[in-house]
Amino acid sequence: MTQKTFKFEIIYKSSKSRARVGRIHTPHGVIETPNFVGVGTNGSLKALDNVLLNEIDLQLMFCNTYHLMIQPGSEVVQQAGGIHNFINRKRPIITDSGGFQVFSLAYGGVANEIKSKGTKTNASSVIKITEEGVLFRSYKDGDRILLTPETSIRAQKKIGADIMISFDELPPYHISPDKLRRSFERTHRWEKRSLDTHLLHPSDQALYAVIHGGIDKKLRQTSCAILRDLPFDGFAIGGSVGKNREEMYEMLGYVMPELPVDKPNHLLGIGDLESVPHLVPLGIDTFDSSHPTKAARHGLLFTKQGPLRLAKHGNSTRFEPIEADCTCYTCKNYTMAYLNHLFKAHEPVILTLATIHNVHFMMDMMRRYREAILRDEI
Amino acid sequence: MTQKTFKFEIIYKSSKSRARVGRIHTPHGVIETPNFVGVGTNGSLKALDNVLLNEIDLQLMFCNTYHLMIQPGSEVVQQAGGIHNFINRKRPIITDSGGFQVFSLAYGGVANEIKSKGTKTNASSVIKITEEGVLFRSYKDGDRILLTPETSIRAQKKIGADIMISFDELPPYHISPDKLRRSFERTHRWEKRSLDTHLLHPSDQALYAVIHGGIDKKLRQTSCAILRDLPFDGFAIGGSVGKNREEMYEMLGYVMPELPVDKPNHLLGIGDLESVPHLVPLGIDTFDSSHPTKAARHGLLFTKQGPLRLAKHGNSTRFEPIEADCTCYTCKNYTMAYLNHLFKAHEPVILTLATIHNVHFMMDMMRRYREAILRDEI
Repeated sequence: MTQKTFKFEIIYKSSKSRARVGRIHTPHGVIETPNFVGVGTNGSLKALDNVLLNEIDLQLMFCNTYHLMIQPGSEVVQQAGGIHNFINRKRPIITDSGGFQVFSLAYGGVANEIKSKGTKTNASSVIKITEEGVLFRSYKDGDRILLTPETSIRAQKKIGADIMISFDELPPYHISPDKLRRSFERTHRWEKRSLDTHLLHPSDQALYAVIHGGIDKKLRQTSCAILRDLPFDGFAIGGSVGKNREEMYEMLGYVMPELPVDKPNHLLGIGDLESVPHLVPLGIDTFDSSHPTKAARHGLLFTKQGPLRLAKHGNSTRFEPIEADCTCYTCKNYTMAYLNHLFKAHEPVILTLATIHNVHFMMDMMRRYREAILRDEI
Repeated sequence: MTQKTFKFEIIYKSSKSRARVGRIHTPHGVIETPNFVGVGTNGSLKALDNVLLNEIDLQLMFCNTYHLMIQPGSEVVQQAGGIHNFINRKRPIITDSGGFQVFSLAYGGVANEIKSKGTKTNASSVIKITEEGVLFRSYKDGDRILLTPETSIRAQKKIGADIMISFDELPPYHISPDKLRRSFERTHRWEKRSLDTHLLHPSDQALYAVIHGGIDKKLRQTSCAILRDLPFDGFAIGGSVGKNREEMYEMLGYVMPELPVDKPNHLLGIGDLESVPHLVPLGIDTFDSSHPTKAARHGLLFTKQGPLRLAKHGNSTRFEPIEADCTCYTCKNYTMAYLNHLFKAHEPVILTLATIHNVHFMMDMMRRYREAILRDEI
């Protein structure tokens, strides 16, 4: 793996916290860390085309293997010359293993289950979980699909993202200690098989492991110990890390020092505005979240003074940008009054304009975090 | 009205047909004719922002006074400094009177009624039609709104489009000859009142009359005779012109010679791909239609070889633009395979990308029509 483009360079380590500024080098350019990773499930940040997105400087896009396998199929992406060609994105892309989506079908709504808000629903889409992998039914055409460490990695290689993620099992939050331990052991065997498959078919892609162990510190520690000894290129933190933010910060505070300092890490699926100030000092390098884009589509605009409701009555005559000093496409071209009108009139273009603003806000905020770390303020 | 910016300049008249190439000068620039007019009901072509739209060279946008009166209100648009400022469009805009929408609420679906496909529905939103105007209930908050020639023109002046349209009554297609005549007479009194209101409050806006008379040639002729003697800046053709394309072409062939040659005309709400080749030789200068944008949102892409179904199976591996020689943003940046994928995955950005292509196609097609007229081929 010595010839790989993938490289993590640490520019500065804070003396006040575990925060660090780094650069992840990939075949499609650099990701400055810490950074927000936009979710483009099907190869598109919802309502935003990739050329316009490129102007916002989103450095890493998160695509979902589960979705791409089913539509258009990983073979189609491969025929297109890989995901970058297929979606016309010139910058880094990361794909997950597909496991998260498959298991979330079994255990109900992803967010609810992870956050322990949901109840177990029927596992109708997942037919069987065995040592080999998980057999499930495609939501698209009812086809039976077997997802294993081997098929996931092969699909991810066809897709061709810069960073891949090992196939893991997502245990439900509500699980007996005994079942958690069995899932835990199996997930590490699956990750090892993912790595083996990756190393058998070399490519200029990086592979991240996924740290598991749920809300059990001992298991989390063991997971780090097992995985950091394997030649993974980076480490993602997966599964439930607590049922509220405080538990999450505590668990991450415990896990982060267990990870190798010289490898990049990624926090899976967490990146709401309230969490970010806590994630950065913990040394999180990248984190993906659909929160900024989803909030935008629901008319919640991010500003330095906090989130702002687009529909708020006073906004209908605010003939000025969302934020006076914002340099995003939306703020440069449109007023709050017009955006408020578009939202109230259910005009689809508001999805695009609000998304641009929120993603730009995240990019700008993360740049300011990096600058603050470099000044040793965090 | 001699100081007005509005001016119609005829560049070339075909020797083969009534087709002509012209330039409509407005306070916000020139509209080259014949041309397609995009429908931006609420101040936005669905799914397309006005800066991106500007790159497609759409020369005239059609906004609906009825919608803008209700949301955000014509006062808000006025406070913003007019519709161009409000929506950030630097080029010409035309507004209708609001009448069409109000009456279509009374007579059922607009298109169905006009095309005689619908049946009369209850007139629940329209409370009363009197000589003064029409009293209706706002769909937004149930408020009673009185729309009259005077209130329509005042609203249109607040909105501030380059071209306004007289307030008229849209009679249903299924109407007795007696009722049609009474509606016909009233609509002309309303148009005269619209003009009087306009002339009382001078502005650098143009006002078009609307030719009525339904499918009665004699009435159409009378309508032209009445309206062409009044100092309108142009003439729109409204109401039902037939229950199928053949009837429409015949009626337009009858009406067009009745209109003053030196004034621009506009065909209201008709502009599907099949009609355009017939409209141009009839001497239609501008026509608005939501067909190209609506078709795009339903996955129907316009090409020189005819409309093309985005969802068609073979398109999933067509790694080339929609049309090889198309210079639109979508074709320059994305392949058919990716667009097909976005459509199948229900990604909202496909609405934008497909709309860009179809509007660009219309602009390109109309440019080719103008060139063909200049070569005396039409």
